Amino acid sequence: MRIVVLTGGIGGARFLMGVRAHARRNGAEVTAVVNVGDDVRMHGLRICPDLDSVMYTLGGAADPERGWGRVGETWAIKEELTRYGAEPTWFGLGDKDIATHLVRTTMLNAGYPLSAVTAALCDRWQPGITMLPASDDRLETHVVADVEGERKAIHFQEWWVRHRGEVPTHRFVFVGAETAKPAAGVLEAISAADVVLVAPSNPVVSIAPILAVQALKEAVQNGPAPVVGVSPIIGGAPVRGMADRCLATLGAEVSAAGVAGLYGARREGGLLDGWLVDTADEATEVPGVTTRAVPLWMTDEDATAAMVAHALELAEVAR
Amino acid sequence: MRIVVLTGGIGGARFLMGVRAHARRNGAEVTAVVNVGDDVRMHGLRICPDLDSVMYTLGGAADPERGWGRVGETWAIKEELTRYGAEPTWFGLGDKDIATHLVRTTMLNAGYPLSAVTAALCDRWQPGITMLPASDDRLETHVVADVEGERKAIHFQEWWVRHRGEVPTHRFVFVGAETAKPAAGVLEAISAADVVLVAPSNPVVSIAPILAVQALKEAVQNGPAPVVGVSPIIGGAPVRGMADRCLATLGAEVSAAGVAGLYGARREGGLLDGWLVDTADEATEVPGVTTRAVPLWMTDEDATAAMVAHALELAEVAR
Repeated sequence: MRIVVLTGGIGGARFLMGVRAHARRNGAEVTAVVNVGDDVRMHGLRICPDLDSVMYTLGGAADPERGWGRVGETWAIKEELTRYGAEPTWFGLGDKDIATHLVRTTMLNAGYPLSAVTAALCDRWQPGITMLPASDDRLETHVVADVEGERKAIHFQEWWVRHRGEVPTHRFVFVGAETAKPAAGVLEAISAADVVLVAPSNPVVSIAPILAVQALKEAVQNGPAPVVGVSPIIGGAPVRGMADRCLATLGAEVSAAGVAGLYGARREGGLLDGWLVDTADEATEVPGVTTRAVPLWMTDEDATAAMVAHALELAEVAR
Repeated sequence: MRIVVLTGGIGGARFLMGVRAHARRNGAEVTAVVNVGDDVRMHGLRICPDLDSVMYTLGGAADPERGWGRVGETWAIKEELTRYGAEPTWFGLGDKDIATHLVRTTMLNAGYPLSAVTAALCDRWQPGITMLPASDDRLETHVVADVEGERKAIHFQEWWVRHRGEVPTHRFVFVGAETAKPAAGVLEAISAADVVLVAPSNPVVSIAPILAVQALKEAVQNGPAPVVGVSPIIGGAPVRGMADRCLATLGAEVSAAGVAGLYGARREGGLLDGWLVDTADEATEVPGVTTRAVPLWMTDEDATAAMVAHALELAEVAR
């Protein structure tokens, strides 16, 4: 069995722990198609927060308490950059993390596509799944917001990390999406998939940038595999992160139904065949989409693997 | 009084401590024209070993025991790069040092010349002198050597750090020297100088690359200021480093006289008006150059400042 997962960063990484656990027990192959919209260059380094969150988490090197970056991280360079007054000062990079960015940036500058660089980094981390960036091309999420009284488009990281999303926000723009192509291997993985899962990641800034790659979205919509999404909203609140702020910007309801409405029913030109919601949202109805309610709290790997099993069962009946 | 010093890395940095001490007592201004031939890009970072040795030493941040890099250095990134198998593995970069390279590389990539970047970095370190790279252009010392049975040109750092100079060595090549121009401010400093000192740095790989910038060399030769060199050889051996290996490659004698012979007498188309040697080398005679013998061991700042005072006295009589 071949499972493709569309996914973002930390929440997606935890979901993938469950997917991998399920796949190991059942002999399935997993390919994660990872958001690159958060990617940014800082201090000359190409930083891929979502790819790294997935890689570190599946590689057993993520910091479980901080929720991002490396366990046992040190911060010598961050302090030095501050002393140099090097901008931006609001984005903290750990020393170990910087080593990853150095290797990646060096390979990118040498001409390797991001997908090849990711594979090379994974040689070390052995995530146990295939990790693919959504695109090898530039695709960046920018946010149109009012900052200090001025409306401007800022990088997603500036909006999220610097401003904590607490500025009047108008819309999200996926810079480069018009021309970005799916990364090497993405279309092949989707067309060979037995099921496509949409991780319980932020639908607006983690999953939407992936789907903004038109050929990728069409491959999922027109592919043979059923598509089942897992709700990132439980009982009207995001499991983690700022999906609520992002959904509000789009005027979408912060609910399991609200997110499903954004993705849309596949039979009506949208994405989803099935939609897995938490038992708290049992009453959720999405026109044209088969829903099922099961516990969605990813408290540990077993609980998450059970969620995944439910999602795969749903896939069998949803299409 | 305006003092210009042609200088390399660690030995030159110690010499500059004495120049600065002397200058502070006597109200003089000091400009160091620093070798860039050791500069190299590794892991995408522009590394300037000599500029940094001078900057860290004069800024009070150099490691006195290791002899290079930052005091209190940590090595998280070096270990990570090794785990990634990132080449080269033979060149160790400390975490704090890498922060300097990140700031520099970011500014260079943004289009600033190395001289402007150096000034920006010195905003933090306040070396108390003006630091100028010899050139803002690419100028790299490569070494033609037999490595694993094959004759090839390798970067100076590979020759020095990786092979410890212990490979059959044929010659040194200053890549880019034909077109490299003096960095912004260099010609102005030389033409306004009251004296030009040649630091007791490696003549072959620290001073020669500076003089390989033709317009710079001519400005020193044709300028108004007397030129006094300080011997890096005491009693037939280099004070530190590998000047002996380098001199042997050129077929030059490893002696105070041998180095002076390389520089040549100014009145005969060379560089030197005066040549300061150690008392151990009192018998040194250099045709056309006024020599003087004084203690040249830079045991502390006062001893070094005394050397500098002798060099400046020699400058008054040598021309």
